[in-house]
Amino acid sequence: LGTKAVVLGASGFAGAELLRLLLTHPSIEAVAAAASSNAGKGVAELYPNLSGYRDMKFISVDDALQVDADVIFSSLPPGESAQLFGDSNSRKVVDISADFRLNHSWIYGLTEFHREEVQGADRLANPGCYPAAALLALGPLAEAGAIESEGIHIDAKSGISGAGRASGEGLDFASVSENTRPYSVTGHRHVPEIEQELSALSGERVTVSFVPHIVPMTRGIVATCVAKLVDGAEHSVQGILEERYVDEAFVRVLGGQQLPETKHLSGTNLAEVAGRVDERTGKVIVIAAIDNLGKGAAGQALQNANLMLGFEETAGLSTTGILP
Amino acid sequence: LGTKAVVLGASGFAGAELLRLLLTHPSIEAVAAAASSNAGKGVAELYPNLSGYRDMKFISVDDALQVDADVIFSSLPPGESAQLFGDSNSRKVVDISADFRLNHSWIYGLTEFHREEVQGADRLANPGCYPAAALLALGPLAEAGAIESEGIHIDAKSGISGAGRASGEGLDFASVSENTRPYSVTGHRHVPEIEQELSALSGERVTVSFVPHIVPMTRGIVATCVAKLVDGAEHSVQGILEERYVDEAFVRVLGGQQLPETKHLSGTNLAEVAGRVDERTGKVIVIAAIDNLGKGAAGQALQNANLMLGFEETAGLSTTGILP
Amino acid sequence: LGTKAVVLGASGFAGAELLRLLLTHPSIEAVAAAASSNAGKGVAELYPNLSGYRDMKFISVDDALQVDADVIFSSLPPGESAQLFGDSNSRKVVDISADFRLNHSWIYGLTEFHREEVQGADRLANPGCYPAAALLALGPLAEAGAIESEGIHIDAKSGISGAGRASGEGLDFASVSENTRPYSVTGHRHVPEIEQELSALSGERVTVSFVPHIVPMTRGIVATCVAKLVDGAEHSVQGILEERYVDEAFVRVLGGQQLPETKHLSGTNLAEVAGRVDERTGKVIVIAAIDNLGKGAAGQALQNANLMLGFEETAGLSTTGILP
Amino acid sequence: LGTKAVVLGASGFAGAELLRLLLTHPSIEAVAAAASSNAGKGVAELYPNLSGYRDMKFISVDDALQVDADVIFSSLPPGESAQLFGDSNSRKVVDISADFRLNHSWIYGLTEFHREEVQGADRLANPGCYPAAALLALGPLAEAGAIESEGIHIDAKSGISGAGRASGEGLDFASVSENTRPYSVTGHRHVPEIEQELSALSGERVTVSFVPHIVPMTRGIVATCVAKLVDGAEHSVQGILEERYVDEAFVRVLGGQQLPETKHLSGTNLAEVAGRVDERTGKVIVIAAIDNLGKGAAGQALQNANLMLGFEETAGLSTTGILP
Repeated sequence: LGTKAVVLGASGFAGAELLRLLLTHPSIEAVAAAASSNAGKGVAELYPNLSGYRDMKFISVDDALQVDADVIFSSLPPGESAQLFGDSNSRKVVDISADFRLNHSWIYGLTEFHREEVQGADRLANPGCYPAAALLALGPLAEAGAIESEGIHIDAKSGISGAGRASGEGLDFASVSENTRPYSVTGHRHVPEIEQELSALSGERVTVSFVPHIVPMTRGIVATCVAKLVDGAEHSVQGILEERYVDEAFVRVLGGQQLPETKHLSGTNLAEVAGRVDERTGKVIVIAAIDNLGKGAAGQALQNANLMLGFEETAGLSTTGILP
Repeated sequence: LGTKAVVLGASGFAGAELLRLLLTHPSIEAVAAAASSNAGKGVAELYPNLSGYRDMKFISVDDALQVDADVIFSSLPPGESAQLFGDSNSRKVVDISADFRLNHSWIYGLTEFHREEVQGADRLANPGCYPAAALLALGPLAEAGAIESEGIHIDAKSGISGAGRASGEGLDFASVSENTRPYSVTGHRHVPEIEQELSALSGERVTVSFVPHIVPMTRGIVATCVAKLVDGAEHSVQGILEERYVDEAFVRVLGGQQLPETKHLSGTNLAEVAGRVDERTGKVIVIAAIDNLGKGAAGQALQNANLMLGFEETAGLSTTGILP
Repeated sequence: LGTKAVVLGASGFAGAELLRLLLTHPSIEAVAAAASSNAGKGVAELYPNLSGYRDMKFISVDDALQVDADVIFSSLPPGESAQLFGDSNSRKVVDISADFRLNHSWIYGLTEFHREEVQGADRLANPGCYPAAALLALGPLAEAGAIESEGIHIDAKSGISGAGRASGEGLDFASVSENTRPYSVTGHRHVPEIEQELSALSGERVTVSFVPHIVPMTRGIVATCVAKLVDGAEHSVQGILEERYVDEAFVRVLGGQQLPETKHLSGTNLAEVAGRVDERTGKVIVIAAIDNLGKGAAGQALQNANLMLGFEETAGLSTTGILP
Repeated sequence: LGTKAVVLGASGFAGAELLRLLLTHPSIEAVAAAASSNAGKGVAELYPNLSGYRDMKFISVDDALQVDADVIFSSLPPGESAQLFGDSNSRKVVDISADFRLNHSWIYGLTEFHREEVQGADRLANPGCYPAAALLALGPLAEAGAIESEGIHIDAKSGISGAGRASGEGLDFASVSENTRPYSVTGHRHVPEIEQELSALSGERVTVSFVPHIVPMTRGIVATCVAKLVDGAEHSVQGILEERYVDEAFVRVLGGQQLPETKHLSGTNLAEVAGRVDERTGKVIVIAAIDNLGKGAAGQALQNANLMLGFEETAGLSTTGILP
């Protein structure tokens, strides 16, 4: 019989993306979808693309926690997950919120850097969308000791779906179209997560500056990362990236003149990564592109769940984007 | 009688924007528009918004050079301007191409930093769109000695009109929409221009790293600039910016929580600038937004021409964007 | 001294567009801007493009009505205008809501068809954006008796700003981008207004079917109108349109192969109109494009106010769109 | 062993979409991809989303015709298919161009209306994208005798990918964004195909008027169709539509207040259809939405090929759109 999943926060974009992916998963089935404010509405009413859930209605989080399930995906608003998952709960949990990412009793689920821990995990904190992109770009170089721990800067461009399904001020089409908008210039909540992981990988205390921007697209993140190369590392960059990811199904290291673009991988769990050495300044520029709802949220969560539950890591996950 | 202008390269986006601005200029009138490949076509046929030029046809560059005029705006493809303007030509020339920006017998026309030279200029090289944004952000701090000359990084996001009107590969809607695309990561042709000006302002040799991106919008540039603050400059950033631009009609230094957005100034000659100190890393982040066809090209060119010809600096130039 | 205007509902898109237009009007000045829910905020805080109103704050509607003014532009939510303007109020009123469009004691302000009444009006109901486009397309043919009064169909495509500044469900970028969305298929509230005017112009009772759609753009409406030609009218269509609008500053009848496009006239008070005879079916297809916030709202309102106050009809109104 | 397919015109959008679909098809494999002007380039070089074809290069059409294959999908430019497929060719052919759609020795492949013929077909003409949408909307009512054969009007809105991958004038982002553009108002090449099918379904000679528009999106078509209802058919519309499509996997008849939107079905082979009776005018409005590259081209082609080759009709075809 199939493995049963419950999705909390299922009416948000990340939750709904998980529902979408589970529709074609060979082994895991979504048996309940919880959404506080939308409880009672049909899943396919809110998300007409999900007609495969024609007969499923959103239920309350409390009700969903009573449903018999093997795994819980939680994509609740900030702070809500932290109150739900005590030790007594026997189901495996993949949390897509930020609540547990800095909590060392939870496994940090950027699979490519924590695969062994993920395989044995019961409690998994899924990476944020910006950290996923930044770490896939910078992680291999930090790990290889090829970049200096000071002076790292990350400039990120995100589609608006990263802000969630809420229809608040500044998210309307008229405000987003034909606009590029920086925000949270010196204090984005994702910075500590990036620093924690880069520090662990490099063995040194790393600090980063980080500037996110909203650009007029729905999906996708490009993280453009700059770091000072250590002496002698100029010719190692491409090799480090290629070697690090050679066996990874979801990271494509680009060669030649190619550079990452979000449209290459929309709807997938892929990341594209490319590095360039700027000889004039002694810096390396590493760029990663992901779908913020894919490798940046629901795809990454499913990749982790696959490992936690003993399935093929790639089950139910696509690497073929829709283009154009 | 009116001052007569000829626009070369008038079927490109920057040239057509100049034609648009001149329609409402109180003193300068466009008397001829040249466009090699489109010679013979009506201006309003190619640009239906320019119905004010109902009876004007594009002519050849050779023919345009014979037209009696006080000022020539040249927005020709790279290399073409360089062959046209010898010393013998008595008209004032504002060149919007990159041909003369590194040529010290031409005045570099970022007005806010070269106003006196511009006033007396006969040959003016208009800044590139990326340098205009980057220099408006970083110039005051370089000039004040508040940032270190090493380690400056500029991450720019541009609308597609910066690539010109040519309909080549990668410019079609299906390629640009829902996409963020980095390019020319370590060798963009605008870098020497940025370094030349920052070096002159700071009195030290400055090198910068620079990564441009195309984002899915038509107009606008955001330049997000990062630099190391010199010791003790943490509290001076906002003051330096405000003081530097207090008398400038086309630069708006933002305060409080505000940050530049391209949509605030679409269609104008304005720049928005904001600075933030990142105390954790000792860096300053300065962000500028402009309309790449306004302050980044045609608007800036007209601002310069106004000064060169003795008109009010703001004549024919708008500071009121169209929003939404 | 200048003529004073008060704008009610000034924080909405149509109201803010009026404020924008008044910034450059030679004779009328906005002295107060009212916005119930945004009272107390700065105009330039909500609309950073309107830095020309740096020191103006939105006030309450009640307060605004006490301000000394020559003309009131009211762009309040449905039903609110109807309660405000009794006979005793001595100021001229241009109402941009739908409250008075079917009220025969107010003048219906599609200027091209009601110019004389507008000139003497104290109470003016500004046309809806869809009716403005549809009537500019079909009006001349109805008036000339060239189309049958039955079987008229209007298919309209609008940018999202027509839905107003409210940030409700379905208006967010993620819902609007890459989407075409029909709505109100058989009962749009603008239908009676269209029928009232076409009936008056033709002298017969006209009924129309009307289907509006939201397409992924911010500004603009294209109304594609189909009607049965009366016998013998096949060769008169272009002539009727051209003759009807030959003296109009804000309607451009296209000839040759040209067809209306919203991008030609974004930000202006222009309408583009083109007619085609479909000989196979005996129908005429007339297409009009306008900026829904220009000729469809604020521009049209100002055109009317100019006449009501004795100014040049075109004062403060642009016919030069921003392209690209 | 797998069934082998060759795709001609594979570097165009429809051809590349077929390659994408075949990557996950359980039984059919693409063994060659031909593209005249792009022969020699890698498939994944032109379409980075198709990294599953990492080692495949585009070859010439001549070379592709020599490849051993069971089925040929041809998506060549107009006129080119017509010269290739004589009787002697033993492979099954699905032609996505317009070359054979009015040719009665080829089967017209709108599966829902020609399923039996498709099952036995060797030569299949795939419907155009506009006709697919229009016929799915109007076909059931024409077949049921519920609409009059005169006076049918179709207003269609299409994403730009329908114009193909060519990067010609008017297809660039700056021309398409923020624009709605009607074209081919009275003479679109798809009209005869629509009339041929509606006439066959209704048993009467049907003529239609048709106006296509480009709206600023990449994928999707909405066809808004208007027809005069025959007396007494007012209450049958919803029933006719539901009954007609009750067993169809790829047509979803909407009920209640729902209306078709392209974003519901992007990337799928689905059509959404909804009907509304306009009692005031005695007309029915039927609206269909499809992905022009899915049900309007490649998806439809694969649905047909599945039947022609004896596979499950739905094999390799998705009904779950990507949203947002």
